[in-house]
Formats: sequence, structure tokens, C-alpha cells
Amino acid sequence: MIDNLLLEKLFSGDRRAVARIISVVESDNNLTSEYLKSIYNKVGNAYRIGITGPPGAGKSTITNQLTKLFRKENKKVGIIAVDPTSPFTGGALLGDRVRMNDIGMDQGVFIRSMATRGSLGGLSKKAIDTADILDAAGSDIIILETVGVGQSELDIAQAADTTIVVLVPESGDSVQAMKAGLMEIADLFVLNKCDRPGSQQAYTALQTILMIKQHDENTWLPKIIKAVASENKGMDEVLNEIENHKKFLLEKNLFQLKRENRTKVRIKEIVENKLREKLWTQTSESLLNSSMKNVMLGNSSPYDIAEEILNQFVNNR
Amino acid sequence: MIDNLLLEKLFSGDRRAVARIISVVESDNNLTSEYLKSIYNKVGNAYRIGITGPPGAGKSTITNQLTKLFRKENKKVGIIAVDPTSPFTGGALLGDRVRMNDIGMDQGVFIRSMATRGSLGGLSKKAIDTADILDAAGSDIIILETVGVGQSELDIAQAADTTIVVLVPESGDSVQAMKAGLMEIADLFVLNKCDRPGSQQAYTALQTILMIKQHDENTWLPKIIKAVASENKGMDEVLNEIENHKKFLLEKNLFQLKRENRTKVRIKEIVENKLREKLWTQTSESLLNSSMKNVMLGNSSPYDIAEEILNQFVNNR
Repeated sequence: MIDNLLLEKLFSGDRRAVARIISVVESDNNLTSEYLKSIYNKVGNAYRIGITGPPGAGKSTITNQLTKLFRKENKKVGIIAVDPTSPFTGGALLGDRVRMNDIGMDQGVFIRSMATRGSLGGLSKKAIDTADILDAAGSDIIILETVGVGQSELDIAQAADTTIVVLVPESGDSVQAMKAGLMEIADLFVLNKCDRPGSQQAYTALQTILMIKQHDENTWLPKIIKAVASENKGMDEVLNEIENHKKFLLEKNLFQLKRENRTKVRIKEIVENKLREKLWTQTSESLLNSSMKNVMLGNSSPYDIAEEILNQFVNNR
Repeated sequence: MIDNLLLEKLFSGDRRAVARIISVVESDNNLTSEYLKSIYNKVGNAYRIGITGPPGAGKSTITNQLTKLFRKENKKVGIIAVDPTSPFTGGALLGDRVRMNDIGMDQGVFIRSMATRGSLGGLSKKAIDTADILDAAGSDIIILETVGVGQSELDIAQAADTTIVVLVPESGDSVQAMKAGLMEIADLFVLNKCDRPGSQQAYTALQTILMIKQHDENTWLPKIIKAVASENKGMDEVLNEIENHKKFLLEKNLFQLKRENRTKVRIKEIVENKLREKLWTQTSESLLNSSMKNVMLGNSSPYDIAEEILNQFVNNR
């Protein structure tokens, strides 16, 4: 049963209540949906920023620096760092957490690391649920930070009002980013580590690629900001450009539309997850297991068995 | 209706028949499952190699060089290159195709590029279906090459008998690979571009990480091979290690087991895809659309609407 006192505490911004409700949502039990339903009318005030880019581009450092700037404006910041894990280390890697340390002690900042391991479908669901919780707890800004090469990681970064793609001046990086689908989702590029050689060429290359993109007055054209995040260079410009993008969305009436489309995608994902749960009962699993021998002998194809399982599921309801 | 003459041509290795049947499967129409069912008893002879790694690590070059070596042994090679696309260029990037050119003219090599764009769930299905077609057409070796950071790309690389992870000696690369989940899936590491500075350190770092992994005589311990693929250095060792891994799988009776587990995962994916198609009919879509206003006003949560849609679907069958 839902703990209403806990909910009240959440709405007042109590950090322990936030952590507890996030844990309930992460554990994905019967209460998960109930809590998410109960908070939903308090959700929608926070501005959401997605930060993504290839491994090693400096996403955590940028998250860190932007957070400090938001804190100067006295804004409450929630950070969801989607943090791939390895069975070798048994948990999230230490690196990012260490880097987060100087903002981690700030009472106006709430950081939650999420593991990608073993949760393909569930990952973006959990990250977005967590964003809702931080939103309901009174965050002004929510930062969703993910390694941006896989589709589900991109989905999370896109579940934002403004999506920042971080690149570094290494040769070919912009082409690789294009290949990885990062170019389409960026509202703003940060070319980080611009003290490295080749940064001007990288900037020019990126700009050339961007200019191929069709645009008119109703399309937002992403800007490229040169930065050295570790020295706090370029961070004010990033903040400023986030503000510009927000204004643009509001002026063109795209703000609500973007959120509505995002919510549709999200609802579809929830329905599909729940249906998948209903599907893989013991009945379906045993039919699958008992059919494997025939498949391995080449007597039945995976498609034959799939149809059998589906028919059994559909007819038995 | 299935074209039996086309199937006969496929089984005899006719390249145009291969291309046509792959197109049918890619277009995902009513005939798709029928063709895949009809070829399944001819599937299973090819040895499948997955090649993955971060963007720019040199996966295509390695694919290219290995293919040439296999061709020297007169083996027929099928290559499936999962090739992210961008709306800016409108199709697969030219780069990889150019690099493939010297093997592309060889009649014993069949190359198929697949786009990742807009096909999350469907991507690994299509890649594996295509592998089956190339298998039935008499390929001895099938190489599945993907950019390895997202889950669905990893899934494809894992749909192989031997999975190769390609890394480069850039600082932190092995840690990033660990974060991206590449370490778990590797049967063999290729440390490519070893003429670059820092390759020895990268090798040592990688080896240190590998040694943390628990293993005994029944677990395969991935080897790290130093290479400069563009100069064909280390490629014979890679080939040799693929052979060693194959022997290990056969000796430990893991070969069939691995394939069986893979096939189970695949059947589940097919069932889920088909169920998803049944779900998103006009009825469900209209219920979703008509509910959006209430969700955006905060009167209903995404979870409420998801339950409504699911109930409607379940009760209407």
C-alpha cells in the first residue's frame, strides 16, 4: 500500500523520501505504478536537460559544471546518471562518482546513478520514472546524462526539453557521431576539450555537417559551443544557449508538443512492458523449452515456434 | 506466395536470389516468416563471427582483412555490416563501403549493409534473419559487424559463435569498453592500431581487467591480440584464435548449447514483435490519442492510460 506520509515528504523535497520512492520504482514491484500515478499531478515543472555523447567526451564534467551554475541561481537540480556497469566491478564505476563529489554534498542537488546492465527495455522507463520523482520533489532542473551510442541511451537523452550532445575534437569524431545517430537528437553541441590540437578543424567539420541539415525559421538550428569543461570554459554559453532553446520552444508552441510526443512514446513503452510480463508465464516458457529440440534439429524454425507460442497466448485469454 | 524456384536458386548460392530474399525479409511483409521457415532446415552450417567495438576502432578493416584470409582457404564469406545512417546523408555512409571495395568484387563474398535508423527492436531480428539466409545460401563464414555500444548492437554481435571486440590503445579505452558492456561478450580482443603510442600500457590495462574475471578450465579466457589491421598485422593470430575458440566450444560441448540459448532469445523476440504488432491497432492508437489531453493536464498519469489500453486489448480478444 502507498505510504501517504512518504508522498507528503516527497512533495516537500525530503531527500530520504526521494531516495526511498526511487528505490520502490527501481525494484519494479506492484507499488511502482501506484506511486507513479500518485505523483503525476505534481510532475511537469522541472526543465529537463539531456546530456549525451561518446564515452570519454566529458559528460560528467559538464553535468558537474552546469549544476554549479544552476546552484548559483539557487535552482534545485536532480541528476540521473545512466552508468553502465560491469560484472567485473560489480557496480557502477567509481570514476564518475568521484567527479561528482563536489556537488554531491550540496543539499540542493540530488544525484542518482542507474545501471544499464541487464535492463534494455526497462532502462529508459526507470530513468524517466526517476525524473518524474525528482520533478515531483520540486527540482527546477533535471539532468539526464547517458553514454550516447546505443538506442536506449539515446532515448533517455531525448526524453528532455533540451538535448546536449558532447563531442571532442578527435579526428573523425563528428562523422562517428553522425553514424551513431547523435546529430539528429542534438539541440546544442558542446565541443569539449577544445584545448586539444585539431579543435578548430573539428569545429569546422561539425559546422559543415550541420549546414547540410534543412532548416527554416520554424526549425531550431543547433549551435556548436567550444568548451574546456574541466576549466569551466564555455559553460556560461551552454547555459545561455539552453535558455535560448527553451525560449524558441515556447515561442513556436513546440514546448508542449514535444512533451506530448514524448509522453506518447512513454505510454506505449509501459503498455508493451506490461504485455510482455503477461506473455512470459510458465505456460509460454514450457512450450518454448519443449520445442527447442525440434528447432535445433532443423525440423521447426524459430518462426513456427513463435507462432505456436503466440497462438497459445492469444487463445488462452 | 513463396517462389520455390527462387528458393532453389538461393540454396545453390545464386547471388541475385540471396539479394532478393534478403529484401523480402527486410521489407518485413507477410512472406517474411514463410521464407524464413522454408530455409530453416538448411541453416546451421556457417560459422558465425561477431565483430564489435567503439566507433573508429577499425572494425571494417578487420572484417576486410579476415575475409581475405578466409578467401585464401576458399571459404565463402557472408558479411552483415550494421551501419548506422543519418538523415543528413540519407543512407549508409560511404566510408565503410569504400573500404569494402577490394573484397566487394569477389564472387565468394556477399556483403549486406543494414541501417540501424528507426528499427530498434527490429534490427537484431533482421540481422539474424539475414545471417540465416546467407547460411542457407552456403556461406562457410558469416561475419556480423556492428558498432558496439548500444544494447541492440551488442545483441547482434553476440548472435555469433565467436565474438571479437576491437579496441584501440587510446587512454581509458578499456575502462570505457568495460562500462559499455563489451568486456562480458568478448571471446577475443583485438587491440588494433597498435602502432600508436600507449599500446603497451593499453594492453597491460586490458589484461589486468581480464584477470579479475573468474575462470576455471570450463570457462574460456579471452586472449588479447595486438594488431595493425590496416597493415594486415596480427590478422593470422586472430584467425588462429577463432579456430582455438571453436575447438574449445566443441570439446566442452558448449557449441550447441550456445546456439540453443541464442535461438531461445531469438524466438522470444519474434513472439514479442508479433504481439506488439497485434497490440497497436487503430483501436489502441485512438484510445492513446484521445487520452493525451488528460495526461498533459496532469489528470491521468501515463500509467493509468497504459492500463486502460492494456485492459482494452486483453478484453477484446
